[in-house]
Amino acid sequence: MVFESKIREMKTSFLLEMAKFTRHVEKIVQEDPRRVIHSLKVGFALTLVSLLYYLQPLYKSFGISAMWAIITVLLVFEFSAGATIGKCLNRGLATLVASALALGALHLASIPGKHVEPILIGMFVFVQAVASTFIRFLPKVKASYDYGMLIFILTFCLVSISGIRTNEIFELACMRILTIFIGGSTSVIVSILVYPVWAGEDLHKLVAQNIEKLGKFLEAFADEFSNKSSSVAESQNDGLFLSGLNSVLDSKNNEETLANFASWEPRHGQFAYRYPWKQYLKIGNLTRQCACRLEALGGYLNSKIQAPEETNGTIQEALSEMSSESGKALKQLARAIETMTRPLSPNLRVENLKIELKNQKSLLKSNGYLLQAIPVAVVASLLIDIAICVENIEEAINELASCAKFKSLDPNGVGEESKKEYRIDILVNESSVANQEAQSSVQARS
Amino acid sequence: MVFESKIREMKTSFLLEMAKFTRHVEKIVQEDPRRVIHSLKVGFALTLVSLLYYLQPLYKSFGISAMWAIITVLLVFEFSAGATIGKCLNRGLATLVASALALGALHLASIPGKHVEPILIGMFVFVQAVASTFIRFLPKVKASYDYGMLIFILTFCLVSISGIRTNEIFELACMRILTIFIGGSTSVIVSILVYPVWAGEDLHKLVAQNIEKLGKFLEAFADEFSNKSSSVAESQNDGLFLSGLNSVLDSKNNEETLANFASWEPRHGQFAYRYPWKQYLKIGNLTRQCACRLEALGGYLNSKIQAPEETNGTIQEALSEMSSESGKALKQLARAIETMTRPLSPNLRVENLKIELKNQKSLLKSNGYLLQAIPVAVVASLLIDIAICVENIEEAINELASCAKFKSLDPNGVGEESKKEYRIDILVNESSVANQEAQSSVQARS
Repeated sequence: MVFESKIREMKTSFLLEMAKFTRHVEKIVQEDPRRVIHSLKVGFALTLVSLLYYLQPLYKSFGISAMWAIITVLLVFEFSAGATIGKCLNRGLATLVASALALGALHLASIPGKHVEPILIGMFVFVQAVASTFIRFLPKVKASYDYGMLIFILTFCLVSISGIRTNEIFELACMRILTIFIGGSTSVIVSILVYPVWAGEDLHKLVAQNIEKLGKFLEAFADEFSNKSSSVAESQNDGLFLSGLNSVLDSKNNEETLANFASWEPRHGQFAYRYPWKQYLKIGNLTRQCACRLEALGGYLNSKIQAPEETNGTIQEALSEMSSESGKALKQLARAIETMTRPLSPNLRVENLKIELKNQKSLLKSNGYLLQAIPVAVVASLLIDIAICVENIEEAINELASCAKFKSLDPNGVGEESKKEYRIDILVNESSVANQEAQSSVQARS
Repeated sequence: MVFESKIREMKTSFLLEMAKFTRHVEKIVQEDPRRVIHSLKVGFALTLVSLLYYLQPLYKSFGISAMWAIITVLLVFEFSAGATIGKCLNRGLATLVASALALGALHLASIPGKHVEPILIGMFVFVQAVASTFIRFLPKVKASYDYGMLIFILTFCLVSISGIRTNEIFELACMRILTIFIGGSTSVIVSILVYPVWAGEDLHKLVAQNIEKLGKFLEAFADEFSNKSSSVAESQNDGLFLSGLNSVLDSKNNEETLANFASWEPRHGQFAYRYPWKQYLKIGNLTRQCACRLEALGGYLNSKIQAPEETNGTIQEALSEMSSESGKALKQLARAIETMTRPLSPNLRVENLKIELKNQKSLLKSNGYLLQAIPVAVVASLLIDIAICVENIEEAINELASCAKFKSLDPNGVGEESKKEYRIDILVNESSVANQEAQSSVQARS
């Protein structure tokens, strides 16, 4: 009986573990369903090159060199088409060059005589390995050709060392290059033709999403600052939006990898060959700079800042308006990237806020309010900083739009959004003296 | 004559290119001289395993399987000992498990008969490749066992597919495992015994350096804020310190990689086995949070903020003091990590500044100064935020100190630094009412 209950216990714990694992797998699939397709693609490409082994006539011509086709597929087949193409080209070129050099080295070493040959080959291998390993540290090489350098060392060593032991080294090298070519081209063709994953498209979406996250954060901040949102929704949102900010701050590495892969990709969808991917990195850096400021602002999210009572909440309203305007501008920019249209100039009048503040100053007569007013002033100042960040992002996106030839929107079909901006413009012009003053102080700061 | 001058031209441009390349190489060596040693180590390990080919008796027993020793050295020999050990263990274990499974699969497939065997093997290979490729997406697997999974797929495919064509598959698998073991152990031994590079030590130094960079930035800010530094030095420093901040903000990926490698390393130097490397990541995250605030503060570095004249620069002095105190505290914490001593509680009274501000308020009587005072207030508020960041960093370092059993300093040998803090303490106690008020507002914010 004890034994039986033990078995039952083990069974339950096993089932629990399995359920946990299943949930884990489900989550990964939901995050990106293309992962399942990628796994199937790898299996398919592998099965294709295995035919070199399975089918008698093919095996007769390739022999065990067919192994290299399988190794190549497994090593170069990456998630995105760009990464696969990059690795393939790296592998192919490195194998060709290294084989040629190794054959040359073998010929050189054979001149003095049979006894010296292994010693000379050993020296060649040592010098080449040391030099190539060092070259891998060069930043440019590390970024795009690291895999190629590795294959270069590997091939040079294998060909030149095998050369000591066999006389058919030339045939061996040719056969190996041929099978690597078969494996590589199979990988590239499957990767591009069957549900392709483009690194460039991913980068494009990632950059747009990050900007949108900042926009959402600013809008949520505006809601909270003017006490519109309920307290339950708040605490949920806080964590959500702050974690969104963190994911933006941590995206640098991901963006750089994607941009590197994207540079290997051919023309696809709306992305031409030689598309200005570097500009995305610039936009990404500016987005992170803005996210940094938002993080600083996030510290005030739960503070329930109260402006001095005499202002009747008008300052708060103005700041909230400011925040939501910045947020809207960011979301508009994100949409512009997503739809690849030239951004409407959001024409965001950040100085608006400064005028508001100036108008309120009569309400802050007594100096006792100064300390109370500080957090408000800080929020105001951070928001101005953020607005400047938004302008910088906009500039960078405009640059992208002109490099990548985004389509222009019909200026007649602009709609509500621009009307509102017009209203703000008028507001600003009415108090243009105050505005100029404010502007000059912003310029002095930035 | 034309031909001669062309040749001379080409010679000069070639020499110029060479000089450029040499400077580039020199820079890389200067950045980290261990790179040269690493290259020599790779060459040495490679020459060692090549002996399997060069020496007749060894070649007689291993044959072309010796190739796998060379491949293993080139693929597992990484810059740090931790990475090398991790890859070695991954490769060894994956090869063992995959070989065993593939032999089992071959046996299973041979039961129904010769004609069905290739089809069954093909199915096994496909299913295994799809499943394993998917498992590589699991975050935990991706972090530590990605290379192992790749080798698992590779070995399973090679062994089971070769099995169709040869009957000596068991001997082949054994020989391959043996040569991989020889290559792997050579790599690990050379990596650990010849000028080892420990990822853990690098992580330790990186985290300490990053904190020190922030400290230096705050001290430079203090100097500039109180107009101590000359304008020539300023513009140089700005770029230097801001780029320092950027390198701190971008270090997340590097830290995570190093922590992962460090977890594979055996006891070395002052770092025990199972050293709390994760705590470094926590400190690193807090450091980056602080760097974010500093970046926001950096916007005010060139602004020549002038507090209202009536204050005679006392506010500026107070803020400058505050900044330099925070900077000193950070540098002290960085030293504590570097020397692995428990940090002296910096006992930093950030509220000090708030009191100062309160004392100054009588000087800001006329409300006309409010707008002028805003940048000062922002800087003050950011500095308070930064001080809170510093406290969080200190807490995390204290946690590390207790986890990693840092040595304690003799409390009698504390010296000047703590006396100064004592002075601040008294200052704070004198105006404790104001202090409590300030504290409560900080708590509400954080």
